[in-house]
Amino acid sequence: MNDSFTIGNQELTSRLFVGTGKFSNHTTMKEAILSSNSDVVTVALRRVDLSGEFQYMVNDIPEHVTYMPNTSGARTADEAVRIARLGRAAGLGDWVKIEVISDQKYLLPDNEETIRATERLVEEGFIVFPYMSPDLMTAKRLEKAGAAAVMPLGAPIGTNRGLEMKSMIQVIINESNVPIVVDAGIGQPSHAAEAMEMGADAVLVNTAIATAQNPVEMAKAFDLAVRAGRIAYLNSHLAPSEEASASSPLTGFLS
Amino acid sequence: MNDSFTIGNQELTSRLFVGTGKFSNHTTMKEAILSSNSDVVTVALRRVDLSGEFQYMVNDIPEHVTYMPNTSGARTADEAVRIARLGRAAGLGDWVKIEVISDQKYLLPDNEETIRATERLVEEGFIVFPYMSPDLMTAKRLEKAGAAAVMPLGAPIGTNRGLEMKSMIQVIINESNVPIVVDAGIGQPSHAAEAMEMGADAVLVNTAIATAQNPVEMAKAFDLAVRAGRIAYLNSHLAPSEEASASSPLTGFLS
Amino acid sequence: MNDSFTIGNQELTSRLFVGTGKFSNHTTMKEAILSSNSDVVTVALRRVDLSGEFQYMVNDIPEHVTYMPNTSGARTADEAVRIARLGRAAGLGDWVKIEVISDQKYLLPDNEETIRATERLVEEGFIVFPYMSPDLMTAKRLEKAGAAAVMPLGAPIGTNRGLEMKSMIQVIINESNVPIVVDAGIGQPSHAAEAMEMGADAVLVNTAIATAQNPVEMAKAFDLAVRAGRIAYLNSHLAPSEEASASSPLTGFLS
Amino acid sequence: MNDSFTIGNQELTSRLFVGTGKFSNHTTMKEAILSSNSDVVTVALRRVDLSGEFQYMVNDIPEHVTYMPNTSGARTADEAVRIARLGRAAGLGDWVKIEVISDQKYLLPDNEETIRATERLVEEGFIVFPYMSPDLMTAKRLEKAGAAAVMPLGAPIGTNRGLEMKSMIQVIINESNVPIVVDAGIGQPSHAAEAMEMGADAVLVNTAIATAQNPVEMAKAFDLAVRAGRIAYLNSHLAPSEEASASSPLTGFLS
Repeated sequence: MNDSFTIGNQELTSRLFVGTGKFSNHTTMKEAILSSNSDVVTVALRRVDLSGEFQYMVNDIPEHVTYMPNTSGARTADEAVRIARLGRAAGLGDWVKIEVISDQKYLLPDNEETIRATERLVEEGFIVFPYMSPDLMTAKRLEKAGAAAVMPLGAPIGTNRGLEMKSMIQVIINESNVPIVVDAGIGQPSHAAEAMEMGADAVLVNTAIATAQNPVEMAKAFDLAVRAGRIAYLNSHLAPSEEASASSPLTGFLS
Repeated sequence: MNDSFTIGNQELTSRLFVGTGKFSNHTTMKEAILSSNSDVVTVALRRVDLSGEFQYMVNDIPEHVTYMPNTSGARTADEAVRIARLGRAAGLGDWVKIEVISDQKYLLPDNEETIRATERLVEEGFIVFPYMSPDLMTAKRLEKAGAAAVMPLGAPIGTNRGLEMKSMIQVIINESNVPIVVDAGIGQPSHAAEAMEMGADAVLVNTAIATAQNPVEMAKAFDLAVRAGRIAYLNSHLAPSEEASASSPLTGFLS
Repeated sequence: MNDSFTIGNQELTSRLFVGTGKFSNHTTMKEAILSSNSDVVTVALRRVDLSGEFQYMVNDIPEHVTYMPNTSGARTADEAVRIARLGRAAGLGDWVKIEVISDQKYLLPDNEETIRATERLVEEGFIVFPYMSPDLMTAKRLEKAGAAAVMPLGAPIGTNRGLEMKSMIQVIINESNVPIVVDAGIGQPSHAAEAMEMGADAVLVNTAIATAQNPVEMAKAFDLAVRAGRIAYLNSHLAPSEEASASSPLTGFLS
Repeated sequence: MNDSFTIGNQELTSRLFVGTGKFSNHTTMKEAILSSNSDVVTVALRRVDLSGEFQYMVNDIPEHVTYMPNTSGARTADEAVRIARLGRAAGLGDWVKIEVISDQKYLLPDNEETIRATERLVEEGFIVFPYMSPDLMTAKRLEKAGAAAVMPLGAPIGTNRGLEMKSMIQVIINESNVPIVVDAGIGQPSHAAEAMEMGADAVLVNTAIATAQNPVEMAKAFDLAVRAGRIAYLNSHLAPSEEASASSPLTGFLS
C-alpha cells in the first residue's frame, strides 16, 4: 500500500509526529524518535539557549527528521511571530507550529491570536501549523490564511484523556481542505488509532511517549497504532450496527 | 521485548485471534490470516460437512496456526458438548471455543449453560475457551471449572460497537487468574488496542476483518493495534489527569 | 397524565425506590423518604436486631410506603432464603429484594445463586425482586422463575458512576416481560433520568441520596428526574441525529 | 430553598429557557411555555413580518415571560447588529441572543463575528447573550465584552445528541464570571440535568420540546430535569468512586 503523505513541502512516510519535551534525557529522546519512525519532531524554541542547550539537543535529533519548532510560551500573536523568526534565524528551517496560550491553568490555545499569527507567518514564507481549540470556523479561517495543516486538540495538553472533543474534530476533518493533525490529549495508542480511523491525517504525541516507563517501546506502540488506524480508515468505514449478526451461520447443523 | 504468551498448552507470539466466518472466499481468508500474524483461528464446526467443505477450508488455513473450533449454533450445554466431540473426532485437536446461544436476536451467550459445558469438556480433556456475557461471578466459575481462558464479549457479536461492557471486563481482568480474551464487538483497531491497554491477554476479531473492503490490509491493522495496546499496557498506565500540563516549559524565554 | 405503575401486588405512583442505608440519622432518613415521594423503600434485614434497632427504624419510615427488605449480606441462595424468611416472620411483609454477593471487593451479585433464591422464594409466596449483574439470559431465567421485577445494576454499588452497563440494560429492557428496575451506580439525577428515558420501569437510589450534603433536597431531585425521564420515554424517542437542523428558519429575512 | 437567578437585569425563578421555533402551532407553543415554567423564551426575529405573523406569535406568548429575540439567519456581525436593532425598534426589549452562523451544514456559530457583534450591541445598551462554539478564550472575550451570559453549544443544533462538548463546557463553567447557559444539542431531560449538575446556570431547549409527540408534557419534563440537576449541583458533588461501597453493612448478621 502506497500511502505517502505530503504536508508542507515534505513527503512523509509516517503520520506520527513526536514532541521532544519532558524526556528524561537526550539519549532516550533520540532512541524514542528513531523507534517511532516519525519524520517530524517538534522542538520548543523557548527552551533553547541558541548557542547552547538547544544546539546540543538538535545534535541528538536524528538527521532525517524535519524540525517543527513550536512557539510554546507565546501569549500573543506578536510573541509567536517573534519566536518563529528567532527559530528560522537559528537555522531551524521554515516549519513552525504556532502555540499561543495565555490561559495558564488549562493551557488552552487562543484561536483568535493563532489566526493572526498564522496570517503573518504565512506571509513571511513560513510553513505554518497552528495548534487550536477545536472549532469549525477557526479551522476554516486558518485554512484560508494559508496554514499547511490545522492541529485541533483532543483534550487539554498533558491530560492523556483522549479525544474528548471528538465530535468537533470530526466536523473539522469533514469540512477541511488541508490536513488535520490531532494534537494534545492523546494518552494511549488506542486514542491515536481512533483519531486516524476518524480520518485525521496525522497525530502528534509527546507526553504519553516521553513520560512512559519505557519511552522507546511506547514510541513504537504509537507508530503501530497510527498505522493501524490509517489502514482502517482507508478500508471500509464499519458503521456500528444496531443489530447483532452472527460470524458463523446459526442454522442447520444439529437438526 | 520478549512477551510470549502461553495459553492452553501453546506458546503464542501473537495476541490476536482471528475468526474465519464471513470471508468472501478462501483465498482471501488465508491471506488475511497470514497478514494478521495470528497463531490461532476459530472455525465454526457447524459449517462443516466433515468429508467436504470443511476439509477444504482446513486446507486453506495456514499450517502453523492452532485451530480453535467453536460450537456456534449450540443452544444448550448438551449441544455444545456434542459439537465439540465431533470436532475432535474429525481431527481438529483439543481446543474448543464454547458458544451456547439461544437468544436469536442479540446472539448473547448463555452463561449458565456455558459453565456446564465447560465443566464437562474440561473433564473430557479439552482445552476450553468459553465465550461469555461479561459477569464477574461467571468468570470465576469458569476459571474454577478449568477454562484455559475466559472470553467476555465487548458488545453483541457483529455490531462493531467496541467495548460497551468495558467496566465489567476491567473487573474480570483485575480479578481473574486465567487469561482474558475479549471477543465480539471489536470493530476497529482502536477497540482492540483499548482492550489490550486495559490488560486483556488477547482479543478475537472476525467480522471487522472478514467484511472489510480489504480483509488482508485490515488483518494487518488489527495485528499492529494489538501489539501497540500490549506495549502500552506493559508500560506505565497513564492515568488520565485532571490537570493540564505543558509538554514544553512555559516560562522565561521572552521576558 | 395517568401513568400509575403496578409492581408486585401494589399500584405505585412513584417510579423511584429509595434505599435506607447510610443515612446519618433516622430523622433525615424519614424526611428524605417523604421528600422523594417514593412508595417503596428497601431495608437491610441484616442490620436489624429484630427486637431493637430495626423496630426503631421501621417506626421512622413513613407509614404509607411499602417495605422491600433486602438480603444484604447473603453469600448464597440458602442464606438469602433464610434472611427473607426472618423478615417475613418479623412482620415486614412479602416483598423481598434478593442480594446474593460473595465478591467482597466490587460487591457484584451472583446471578446463579440469585436465580436459585428467586425460584425458592417465589414458591414460598414472596414477591421477589432480584438484584443482578446485567445479562440477558439471567434476566429471562429470573422472569421465568416468577420474579416480580428484575433489577440490573448500572455500575458497582456505591460508585455513583452511572449507567456503565447501559448497552446490556437496554437489551434487557427490550426483551423482558416484567418490570425492570435499575439499581446501583446511580449517582446523579441525570443518571436516573437516563435510565427512565431508556424505558426502565423504575430506579432504586440509596448512596447518592443518603450521603448527599442535604439528603432531603437530593431525594426531591431524584423524584423530579425520574418523573422527567419517564415523560420523555412516553413521548417521542428522539433519535440522535447525524445532521444539524435549525430551530429557526435560516433564509429570507435580510435578503 | 431560595435559589433565584439574576441574569441580565431580571430575577428569574426558572433556569430553563425555551425556544419557540418548530412548534406545529401557536396554541401548543403557548401551552408548552406555560408547562415549562420558563421565564425566558427565544424568538427568531427573522421569522417575523413585523406587522404580521410576529405580532401574532407575540400575542400567544404568555405575558410574564421575557423575550430573548435571536439573530437567527445572521451570517456576520453586521447582520446580527442590524437584526438586533430591528427587534428593539419593534418593541421586543433589550435582550438579544446573538447567533452568527455562516456554516450551512452543521450550523455552527462563528465565534469571531459573535464577539464583534457582542461588543457593538453591549455598547448600544443591549443585554447580550452570545451563542458560541465552546472555547475558553472566546468565552473570556465575550465576558470582557460585557455579555450578560455565555451560551456554549452542547452539540450541533437540532441533533439531540447531548453534551458532546462536555469537557470544554466544564472548563468554561469553571473559569467564567458570568452565567453559562448551555444551548443546542440537548435532546433529553437527562442531558439538561447533566448540564445543570456540571454547574451550568441555565439551559436552553427548543427542538426536543417543540418536536416531541406531546410538547406540553415534554416541556414539563425539562422543567423537572433542570430543577433536579440544579439541586444536585448545590448539594455534594459526588465524585465517581473507583471502589464499590455497600449501601448496607455486609458483616455480622448470619454468622
